[in-house]
Parts: sequence; C-alpha cells; structure tokens
Amino acid sequence: MSVSLLHAAGFPTCFKQQQQQLMLCVSWRSMRRRRLRPSVSCCAASEERTVVVGLAADSGCGKSTFMRRLTSVLGGVTEEEEEECDRAAPGGYSNTLVVGGATVICLDDYHSLDRAGRKEKGVTALHPAANDFDLMYEQVKALKSGAAVEKPVYNHVTGSLDPPELIRPPKILFIEGLHPLFDPRIRSLLDFSIYLDISNEVKFAWKIQRDMAERGESLESIQASIQARKSDFDAYIDPQKQYADVIMEVLPTQLIPDEKEGKVLRVRLVMKEGVKHFNPVYLFDEGSTISWTPCGGKLSCSYPGIKFFYGPNTYFSSECWRWMDSSTD
Amino acid sequence: MSVSLLHAAGFPTCFKQQQQQLMLCVSWRSMRRRRLRPSVSCCAASEERTVVVGLAADSGCGKSTFMRRLTSVLGGVTEEEEEECDRAAPGGYSNTLVVGGATVICLDDYHSLDRAGRKEKGVTALHPAANDFDLMYEQVKALKSGAAVEKPVYNHVTGSLDPPELIRPPKILFIEGLHPLFDPRIRSLLDFSIYLDISNEVKFAWKIQRDMAERGESLESIQASIQARKSDFDAYIDPQKQYADVIMEVLPTQLIPDEKEGKVLRVRLVMKEGVKHFNPVYLFDEGSTISWTPCGGKLSCSYPGIKFFYGPNTYFSSECWRWMDSSTD
Repeated sequence: MSVSLLHAAGFPTCFKQQQQQLMLCVSWRSMRRRRLRPSVSCCAASEERTVVVGLAADSGCGKSTFMRRLTSVLGGVTEEEEEECDRAAPGGYSNTLVVGGATVICLDDYHSLDRAGRKEKGVTALHPAANDFDLMYEQVKALKSGAAVEKPVYNHVTGSLDPPELIRPPKILFIEGLHPLFDPRIRSLLDFSIYLDISNEVKFAWKIQRDMAERGESLESIQASIQARKSDFDAYIDPQKQYADVIMEVLPTQLIPDEKEGKVLRVRLVMKEGVKHFNPVYLFDEGSTISWTPCGGKLSCSYPGIKFFYGPNTYFSSECWRWMDSSTD
Repeated sequence: MSVSLLHAAGFPTCFKQQQQQLMLCVSWRSMRRRRLRPSVSCCAASEERTVVVGLAADSGCGKSTFMRRLTSVLGGVTEEEEEECDRAAPGGYSNTLVVGGATVICLDDYHSLDRAGRKEKGVTALHPAANDFDLMYEQVKALKSGAAVEKPVYNHVTGSLDPPELIRPPKILFIEGLHPLFDPRIRSLLDFSIYLDISNEVKFAWKIQRDMAERGESLESIQASIQARKSDFDAYIDPQKQYADVIMEVLPTQLIPDEKEGKVLRVRLVMKEGVKHFNPVYLFDEGSTISWTPCGGKLSCSYPGIKFFYGPNTYFSSECWRWMDSSTD
C-alpha cells in the first residue's frame, strides 16, 4: 500500500515540468522517483489481515476529496469492484466506496441519532451521544479479523437511517469521519491514522465561499452555524489529532498579507517518527532541517510562489515529529 | 580545467561516508557526482592560448596551501614537469610551481624594491611603489600570447632579487600574490579571479598561534606588526575583492560563542553570476535559496557541527552574486 499523502493533501505542483537540468524537479513524477512522498509499506497487508486506516476531520474539510484522491492512488475501479459496490448498496443509498482492494466507510453511518433525534435531544452530530461507538468498534474489529458485517447506513439526503449494507473485509479498510480516533478501543485497531486539520480561518473562508456564493446564505447565518458547532468541535473532534500518525494542517498563507479568501494556502504535514511501516517524507536529506525557496525561473507560478520547510519539531509536547511546510501563492 | 574551489578552500567533510541512504551524502565523492563543486570549464584552454587565473590575498592567508590543493586537482607532477621545474630554476631559488600543465607564479617576484630598499624608503611590500606593475603586465601578457619570459625572482630567504628564471607559457597560468587584481591592465588579462578573504579576527588568531607558539614572539609585537601593515592592506589589497569572480571568506564560526582560536570557522563562497566558463556551486537546486542543517546522525562531528546556506545576495552593491555559507564546529 502506498499512500500519496502529499498529493492527496493537494500539495502544490507549480514547477515547470520541462526543467531537465533541475537537481530536484518537484513534479510529482520526480518526487515519486526521489522518494519525496511519505509511504506506508504493505508488510501488514497479508491476505488474511485487513489493514485499517483512520481519517479524522470536521465536516466540510475535504475528507471526501482527500479520500477520492487517496483511493485513486490505489488504482481505478474495476468492473468487479463496481459490481461489489452495487452489491454493497443494491439500488439503495450508500456512503461506502469500494475501490482497488480498499473499502472506505463513512463513520456517519454509526450515528445513533438521526437528524430528527439530534434535533429533539439538542445535540450535534459531533457529540458522542449521537454516535454508536460500541457498534463502530465491534464492526471494525470484525472486518479487521476477516468477518463481513451488516453496517448501518445514514442517509445524508433524508437525515435518517436506511437499511444496513453488507461490508466484506477488504485488504485496506479506511474509516473516515468525525470520530475515528475518539474511542480508545477503535484507536487500538488502527494501523495508521490521519487527521485533516483545516484551520478555523480557512474553514470559515471555505464555508463562506460555498454557502454564500452557492447557497445564498447570509454571512450572519453562516457565522451562527459555525459558532453553534464550535464547542462540540473543540471538545470531541479537535483533540483527536494528538493520536494521529500524520496531521495535515491547512493554514492561511504567510506569503500574501491579509489573504482572506482561503484560496492561497500553507500546508503543513506533521509526521510522527517511529511509526511501524511509515516512512515520513523529507526534503533532500532525511533527518535534516531545511528551508527551501526554489529558483523563481523554475516556477510556473510567480516568485516566491512556493516555500518549503522540513525539520524536526514538537507536537503536543512530544519531540518525535517531523514537519513539512509548504506555502504557495 | 576543473577547479575544486570548495575542496581547496578547506570546506569541511565531516559526514559519515557509510550513510548509503542519504539522498545527498556530502562526501566530496558525491559532491563531485552531484555537481556540487563550482567548475571553470576548459573551453578557453586551446593549445594556442594560455588561460590566466589570478589569486589575490594578504600574506599569511593560506595562498600557498590553497595553490597546492588547487594544483593537486590538476594532477600530480610528472617527471617531465619536474625537469621543467628544474630548468626554470636550475639549482637556484624559485617561487614558481610547475605542475600538471599549469604554472603558478608568485607576484612577489615583481617586487621592485627588495627588503633593504623597502626599509630605506619606509614602504611595505603591500604598497604599489614596492612593485613593478609595468613588468608584471608585460610578462603576463607575453605568457598569455604564447611567449616565454625571463621573470625576476624575489628571494624570500635573503630578501633580495635573484637572477631571473625562464617561464614558458603553460596551459594555465596562475598568478598569486598581493596584487593580481590591482592594476586594471593585468585585470583585463585574467580569465578568472579569486580573492581569498580571511577576516581580520581569523587572520589575527592564526598569526598569534603561529608567531607566539612557534616563533616565541610576544603578543604586543604581533599586534604592532599587524597594525603597521593595516593601512596599506586596507588601501591596496582589500579593495581588489570587488573585482574577483569568486571570493572565499573565512570568518569566525557562529556556532560556538566566543571562539577566538580561529580553529572553528565559517566559510562563505561568494560567486559572481554570468561569468563565462564558470558554473557557480549550488546546494540541491540551482538558483534557489536554501538553509540546510544536515541530520545529526549522519555527521562524524558533533551536532550541529555543520550548517549550510545557499542563495542570492548582493556584494559591493551588485546583485549578481550567489553565496554559499558553511559553518562548522
């Protein structure tokens, strides 16, 4: 299993491809050659054992986009897999994606309260009380040990629970959602975990853009809805990042003062060291500290359209971390 | 002609050789492979034309050490060359070095005043009045155009002028000394020029070490002799660096506070861009800006025993320069 985290995270590719003389041409092709992408090796993925990867993030943070890119790295959808996909949700609604030997399940399917139930009890979907962690644990454990499960289905269109769907144990099981790292029992089942950490400024800018421009909502109502979710987010979602093996932070750029649209970003890849089967990405020299502003003449964007940092750093008071920083304009 | 400036300048080599996994193992072997050494190409060195390289520096700055290293890069001394060397100074004193198709002449040979003469007139060897620039120009010009010359010989042992020696035009002529870049006529003959810029602090530390420890001189007399030369150095030697294509600065380290012995150094290679036949050295990505602290585990010295910087900078108000900085402990 090779997980293209950088590509999936949308790390920028603004280098001219034709620069043959570049010592390091930062096209994805050359990054692949030069092992500049982090990788998770497949030693654990025997025929008998399902590898389980958790992806945590708040709603509207690009989990689906990320998963689409990640699974595209694992190969396209074969006819057989399409059939499998249909079998999993025969004619019905499904949040599940089956692709290239991997299955992605959305943890929203474990909502114990549907939209009406949450409204009635006055809790958000972020609150543990709205989710069935016992069932989540049992089913992930079963899939990991090779047993198929009848997983519930939460219908995002109707906001209610649909009939369950059959999930067969895949080679790689991705569990993506609000709480893959919340319950210690489920954390212990994960072979690898990722937290997609979109900063409040960027999340706010993205939400405004989508909800105001596309849905015609007012700025005030958007602010109110963000505010309503904030305390649950801070209490139950955000703290999960301390347990992740990789945190992808998306922050406002530092290259353009007062950039508020969230179109120009800074991406920081925070990688735990010493994780079995995980090789953190590095710039040029593994284990070093490097600040790099590539040559302006080799960029297809304006200079200094991209800046990189790579080096050791602390995260949640632990020193076993490597940071990879990338700012673009 | 490939000039190993970095090696000649004593750039540090404190990396463990056995690190096979290093993306960039900074041994000189790999630096050679990865074109991390500046080079002067040989297009100008046809059979008919002598390439002239100037090396300027104050006395006691390591010109001889530098030249020995530089000429060692050009190949060892062949029997024929040894014979040539003997012919150039048959049994007598000579400052000239003939090696691997190159001849190094020391510009002290153009002193117009010998030691007694300088004492009588009260000028140092640094003063233009103590040197014959007309003859220097005529002879470098003659050698460059393929004609042999009878060059004077200044005997550093006796302090007087010896009978002249025959210099035949070599493939590469190095002129090293106090004033290779002083006279505009001589500057115009140079195909490439280097200024070895030992900072006052380091020069002082080196002189104290040598003259106190090895020659038993007092600190006061050393300080007095440095002071006596300083105004001529500032007036006639130091300003030459603005005309050089490469300046090698040797500065106190920034890694150890209060290091006064001049044993731990910072070396900065200042390289002019756009010089014909000269490819400035770079770290990883030509034209970029990089700060690099290699991985401690890959160093044979203590961490952070070495730090590198590479990037654009100004020098004498001109922007066409690249800097390569290296600090060691």
